[in-house]
Amino acid sequence: MKRGYFITLEGPDGVGKTTQIARLFNAVQKMGLHALQTREPGGTAIGDAVRQILLNPDYSRMTTLTEALLYAASRAQLVQEVIKPALLDGKVVLCDRFIDSSLAYQVFAGGLDFDFVWYTNRAAVTDCLPDRTFILNLDPQVGLQRRGKTLADRMEQKPLAYHQRVQKGFLAIAERFPERIIVIDANRPVESIFSEIWSYLEPALASLR
Amino acid sequence: MKRGYFITLEGPDGVGKTTQIARLFNAVQKMGLHALQTREPGGTAIGDAVRQILLNPDYSRMTTLTEALLYAASRAQLVQEVIKPALLDGKVVLCDRFIDSSLAYQVFAGGLDFDFVWYTNRAAVTDCLPDRTFILNLDPQVGLQRRGKTLADRMEQKPLAYHQRVQKGFLAIAERFPERIIVIDANRPVESIFSEIWSYLEPALASLR
Repeated sequence: MKRGYFITLEGPDGVGKTTQIARLFNAVQKMGLHALQTREPGGTAIGDAVRQILLNPDYSRMTTLTEALLYAASRAQLVQEVIKPALLDGKVVLCDRFIDSSLAYQVFAGGLDFDFVWYTNRAAVTDCLPDRTFILNLDPQVGLQRRGKTLADRMEQKPLAYHQRVQKGFLAIAERFPERIIVIDANRPVESIFSEIWSYLEPALASLR
Repeated sequence: MKRGYFITLEGPDGVGKTTQIARLFNAVQKMGLHALQTREPGGTAIGDAVRQILLNPDYSRMTTLTEALLYAASRAQLVQEVIKPALLDGKVVLCDRFIDSSLAYQVFAGGLDFDFVWYTNRAAVTDCLPDRTFILNLDPQVGLQRRGKTLADRMEQKPLAYHQRVQKGFLAIAERFPERIIVIDANRPVESIFSEIWSYLEPALASLR
C-alpha cells in the first residue's frame, strides 16, 4: 500500500516550530505532494479538549503521571483519526510536537521512568513513529526572553531549571535515536533554519512523487 | 506508618453502587472510623474535566486506546491527590469504580491488550491497589431496563453485546484476583446486598480501630 512521509518538529515553545512548519507545508505542496499540518496536544476535537486541561494554569496540582497519560491520550486519538489515514493516503504529515516531547518534558524534566513513558506511547501511537524528526535547539534563557513573560500557560510557568532539563532531554533523545532525529541550531535566522531542514527532506520526499 | 483501608465497588451503571457506598459510608462512621467517599472518573477538579470528555456523547470517534489513557490519567490524579493522603491519614476510602473498570470496559469489552492496560494502570496508581473490591453482578438486560433509555452518556450508548462483554469481563477479573475481589449478586433488595458486603468488611475494619 502507498504510504506518505511523517515529519515531526520538536523543541521548546517559542523556538519557531510553527513558522518552520508553515514554510515546509508550502515547500511540500510546491513539489506537487499533498501535505497535512497538525499539532500536539490537540489536532482533533477530543485532543483539543484534552489540550484545554493540559495547558490550564488553574490545574497546578496536576501530577507528572497525569500529564504524561493525558498527552498519550491526545496522541492516540490524533494518530488514529488524522495521521494514519493521511499517511495511508500518501500525504506528507507535518506535526508540531509528538512522542519526543513526552520524553523530554515528562521523563527528562519531569522525572518519570523512560521505559514507562516510551512503552505507553509506543502503544498509544500503535507504533506509528515519525520517519524524520527535527529538534530545534535553543538555550532556554534565549527562548524565554524571546516570548516574554505574558500569558504563560501551565507548562510555560515552570521554572528555568525545568526548561534546561527539557533542552538536555531533547539532546539525549537525539543521541538515542540518531537514525531518526536531527538536531538543528535554532539561534539563527528563520531562512537559514529552513534551508538546513529542507536539505534533509527534499531527497526523501522526491522519492514519493 | 498508620494506614487506612481501601474499598472499591465495581459493576455496570445502574446496579446500585452509589446507594451501597452511601450506606457503607454511614456504617463506617458509626464504627467510629473516618470515611472518605469518591468516584471515577473524576473525584478531583482535573479528573472531573477528564470525565466531561469521557462521557460526552459528541465524542463518538474516541478510540478505545484514548479512552483507556484518559481513565488512567483521571485515576493517577485521584490517587495522588485524594486516595493516598486519605489512606496515610488512616481513613476508610470508598471508591465508586477503579482499576477493574478499565479491565472490564477497555480490555474485555473494548478489545485492548490485558497486559498493556494492567501495566499502565499499575503505574498510574503507583501500585496503590484496593484492599477489597466488590463486584455488583447483574444481567445487563436487567440493568439497561432498570435505568431506562433516556439521557444515556457515551458509555451507556454502546450496544447490549458490549455490556454483556463487560459483565463477563468483571467475572473473569474476579477469578484472576480471588484474594481481593468478591462478586455480589445484585439482583435482590438493597438491604440484602448491603448485609452481605458488610459481613465481609466489618471484621477487617474492626482491626483498624
